[in-house]
Amino acid sequence: MTIAHNDWMNIAIDAAKLALPKDVPVGALLIANGELIATGYNRRELDCNPVAHAEMLVLQEAALQLNRWRLTDTILYVTLEPCPMCASAIMQARVGQVVFGAYDPVMGACGSQYGLLLDSPDLSVRGGVLEEPCGALLRDFFRQARQK
Amino acid sequence: MTIAHNDWMNIAIDAAKLALPKDVPVGALLIANGELIATGYNRRELDCNPVAHAEMLVLQEAALQLNRWRLTDTILYVTLEPCPMCASAIMQARVGQVVFGAYDPVMGACGSQYGLLLDSPDLSVRGGVLEEPCGALLRDFFRQARQK
Repeated sequence: MTIAHNDWMNIAIDAAKLALPKDVPVGALLIANGELIATGYNRRELDCNPVAHAEMLVLQEAALQLNRWRLTDTILYVTLEPCPMCASAIMQARVGQVVFGAYDPVMGACGSQYGLLLDSPDLSVRGGVLEEPCGALLRDFFRQARQK
Repeated sequence: MTIAHNDWMNIAIDAAKLALPKDVPVGALLIANGELIATGYNRRELDCNPVAHAEMLVLQEAALQLNRWRLTDTILYVTLEPCPMCASAIMQARVGQVVFGAYDPVMGACGSQYGLLLDSPDLSVRGGVLEEPCGALLRDFFRQARQK
């Protein structure tokens, strides 16, 4: 199971890299019945869209692909612990499981700063999957941003 | 100032009615420099989109109209107290003021259930503006939904 988690997270990491160089590199994907339904990456700057976090785009694309906005029995992978916006969206979309990579001590809503995603009995959460490469992407991005 | 609040909220109420009959009637709008920039209404069912709350659509449309995703010095009006998803989106978009109509004891993130929107020193919040007509729209919708 750990191997499967890592495989999906590696695809989310590849998605995250597509956000570069303009946007903070966060990637996400959603699977249902073991199949990849949607991938996405943070596009806030690229799209001039304040809510275009990777998870939000994936939830919307997955709903269109599955033709239902209630995403029960799906798993969302994301390279960074979801913020409260994304956490609430994930809950309202009835996603069954969230697997994330790096922890976010500033905005994380899976316990790091907020506890939103821990409130739901219908949702399981696992953090720290491929934490090191997920976090390294972010650290590199912000280090380069400071040098500009 | 109260009259101006009511005038804008009446426009948000008109927007909310456009969600009927499929979607929960919640409407929102955003103003900048006293001008209406964007209006929107809940389209979750209509668009099969789990994140298509009125506020989310207004934030995105306003960012396009103003050509900036940081919506500083703007005011968002919405007929219902924002949920945690919308509250966090509003904060991340740097909206300066939120004015809402009806309180939401189940999902409200301006103090009713969650305190997210009360955490930000850069954001002022006012609730209960035209609370009665804003709430009546919702009560009528759910009463009719139960009768179906």
